[in-house]
Amino acid sequence: MAGVRVAFIGAGSAVFAMDMVRDLCLTAGLGGSSVTLMDIDKERLDAVHSMATRYAAQVGSKIRFRKTAKRGEALKDSDFVIDSVLVGGHYEQEAVRTVGEKHGYYRGVEAVEFNMVSDYYTTFGGYHQLKFFVDLARDMEDLCPNAWLIDVANPECEAGTLLTRRSKIKVVGYCHGYKEYRDICATLGIDPAKADFQVAGFNHNIWLTRLGYDGRDCYPLIDEWIRRDAEKYWNSHVSEEIFDVQMSRAAADMYNLFGLFPVGDTVRSGSWKYHYDLKTKKYWYGRFGGPDSEIGWQRYLKELDASTNTVMGLAQSSPSTLIQRIPPRMSDEDVVQFIDSVVNDKGERFVLDVRNDALIPGLSDDVVVEVPVRVDRKGVHKESIEKIPRRLVDMALIPRQVRLEMAMEAFLHGDRDVLLEVLFRDPRTRSEKQAREVLDEILDLPFNKDAKKHYT
Amino acid sequence: MAGVRVAFIGAGSAVFAMDMVRDLCLTAGLGGSSVTLMDIDKERLDAVHSMATRYAAQVGSKIRFRKTAKRGEALKDSDFVIDSVLVGGHYEQEAVRTVGEKHGYYRGVEAVEFNMVSDYYTTFGGYHQLKFFVDLARDMEDLCPNAWLIDVANPECEAGTLLTRRSKIKVVGYCHGYKEYRDICATLGIDPAKADFQVAGFNHNIWLTRLGYDGRDCYPLIDEWIRRDAEKYWNSHVSEEIFDVQMSRAAADMYNLFGLFPVGDTVRSGSWKYHYDLKTKKYWYGRFGGPDSEIGWQRYLKELDASTNTVMGLAQSSPSTLIQRIPPRMSDEDVVQFIDSVVNDKGERFVLDVRNDALIPGLSDDVVVEVPVRVDRKGVHKESIEKIPRRLVDMALIPRQVRLEMAMEAFLHGDRDVLLEVLFRDPRTRSEKQAREVLDEILDLPFNKDAKKHYT
Repeated sequence: MAGVRVAFIGAGSAVFAMDMVRDLCLTAGLGGSSVTLMDIDKERLDAVHSMATRYAAQVGSKIRFRKTAKRGEALKDSDFVIDSVLVGGHYEQEAVRTVGEKHGYYRGVEAVEFNMVSDYYTTFGGYHQLKFFVDLARDMEDLCPNAWLIDVANPECEAGTLLTRRSKIKVVGYCHGYKEYRDICATLGIDPAKADFQVAGFNHNIWLTRLGYDGRDCYPLIDEWIRRDAEKYWNSHVSEEIFDVQMSRAAADMYNLFGLFPVGDTVRSGSWKYHYDLKTKKYWYGRFGGPDSEIGWQRYLKELDASTNTVMGLAQSSPSTLIQRIPPRMSDEDVVQFIDSVVNDKGERFVLDVRNDALIPGLSDDVVVEVPVRVDRKGVHKESIEKIPRRLVDMALIPRQVRLEMAMEAFLHGDRDVLLEVLFRDPRTRSEKQAREVLDEILDLPFNKDAKKHYT
Repeated sequence: MAGVRVAFIGAGSAVFAMDMVRDLCLTAGLGGSSVTLMDIDKERLDAVHSMATRYAAQVGSKIRFRKTAKRGEALKDSDFVIDSVLVGGHYEQEAVRTVGEKHGYYRGVEAVEFNMVSDYYTTFGGYHQLKFFVDLARDMEDLCPNAWLIDVANPECEAGTLLTRRSKIKVVGYCHGYKEYRDICATLGIDPAKADFQVAGFNHNIWLTRLGYDGRDCYPLIDEWIRRDAEKYWNSHVSEEIFDVQMSRAAADMYNLFGLFPVGDTVRSGSWKYHYDLKTKKYWYGRFGGPDSEIGWQRYLKELDASTNTVMGLAQSSPSTLIQRIPPRMSDEDVVQFIDSVVNDKGERFVLDVRNDALIPGLSDDVVVEVPVRVDRKGVHKESIEKIPRRLVDMALIPRQVRLEMAMEAFLHGDRDVLLEVLFRDPRTRSEKQAREVLDEILDLPFNKDAKKHYT
């Protein structure tokens, strides 16, 4: 097979890159393909490239890895573009958060109802990221107009919607969060591999619309677990894993209110009820207060740094260490499998972010929802969603859509008044003055010069 | 002409009843009709009935006025039902507000974004009112299944939606607030009678989708007024009329943000930006802080009491006083004209609350919107809405729809958790404890025994 051309933008995201490299090398159907790693961080790029070429050699893959710091060079004539760029990295996000906290916004101005995930910056800190998506899409229209963009970078909900509205390129978003349905299965004592599951909603706001096993509905098992075992689990379950919140009190509480069980990152958000302060977070999410508390998030950033350093170290490691640290088996990410399914017409099932187009009633057609799809040579085929309670749409999804639309309005029109309006609707805002001051100070951050100009 | 049968439920609403009596007596096309005044307040009912029969005699009307304290008696075989009932009256509303303020909710728990109108109780204080609508509709299905219900009682948005979903009776909501477009015209120096206007949105959340005069768009005149005259107007305009906020700073600010000018009671709500405290309200609405501040609302309640007493006094007044106080000309309410337009197939234009059915894109089909309609023997014919910015739908109408749906969910399922969730989304809630305490205390109010039982 001739292979395809893949551009990997943001390949310096070392931990994620390791998984991409591994999957690309191990996917027989993509043999002969060429992959261009692109990043503006030369040191990271060199390390990932070195790791990739040596790993390919080691496992006998025919994938060719190139590297470049120039986006255009990577994109040119690509068939697939993987994007994992976080413009400004976590550093800028933390700087924006610090300003927010100074003005009375616990966990920062972006940490709001239905959007508590700490690196999901849709609005005030989202300018560079959204701008990047638009620029990337425009470049793709020039250099590889028929390529698929696979976006793994946040905010996928806003990014995907923006791109489906403003560009003709083919785009899907991918987030591995949905795989936490397996944690639900494990808790219930059923084999995730044999479970018949379906989720639907927005990215980081998805809900278990079906869980079946052996032809039977498993929701009664969830009910039984909550009735019989949950309280004990919440009181005794102590995990070192900060993201281990799938079966938390918050999840059960959301299920009680909305009628479907929340899946993956969904659990991290929900209502303000879970997020007033650290004490509240600890009650609902366990001892770290979940990954998005001041404790959880600092741990995550540290862990991410450590993992990144480990991967960077692999650049010069011995072949045996390399294989030991990256065992030749597929990662848990669906990105390369998506490519394989398109290229080789495999019709595999994934959960992806795609345009709604009436799939979830009550939401706008032109917003990007996260739903199961089949993927083949012809593209992405959405599954129909069988059970989605109106209450959940009205009370959990539509409010998230409102936030998405406000982010779109602010960004697309460079409208500072919309940014302020977002703050006026924030429970932590006590006065117009407070809103204006926090916004001014965020836009006065050194890296925000262009954002400030944009939002005049 | 044989005339029709009209049931007026809540006829003890004396001030409004005076207008209904006047219009019924003066509408030639309804001569020979019979009107049954119904109220559980015998004193008020007797006074209004006395006033009505004497007024009819005085102006030579052939309308027959009956009275009854039994709803069924009034409804039986009616062709039209006018409902102006506020269950529990303003007293109960103020009691609920007092509890809210005690727990840190300025102007009470019902006073929230896009719903600051002080007697518009959708949720916590809305139980009796919504229950009343359901009971009334059920009685109508039995006793006058083909009658039109004309609802003038708040919350029209929730009431209308509830009834279109839960009953087969024909229902329209009517609110005179839209007529404030005339105040906009007057400010711009154009004759309201000749203006070509259109409004659309939800009750108390309607927007000027068109203002034309002599074939020209008048929005540029609004822009010019804001640029040239508004600041002076805001600084010097001192009105004794607490509802005189159509041209307030808040209205201009909403127009700036959403792209259309707000009309009537719409101006009273908007974002929290205008409602943090009395000082803020005064800046945006003038010296009383608008009708919904603690000053404005107390004045309104006093004025209402005084007007009610005046009308009650008319029950025993001399014929000449009666005619002097109720001059024989049509009131400014459209209710009787609506009846006339149906009965006599007149095709007149009104602004009414009717099912959306895709008229305003982005909103659910089965919510009740406030839009211009033509009314004839066949019923209500909606006008198409030509210009409604997506931003306005996404940022002002959909958030109001979310609140409406939460009110529906809470009421229809008797779900206390939804009531709590409404509070968790309230900016004034600081903790779960605060939310639970204020709700408990509201439901413990003596008149809320059945509400407490409903929300278990």
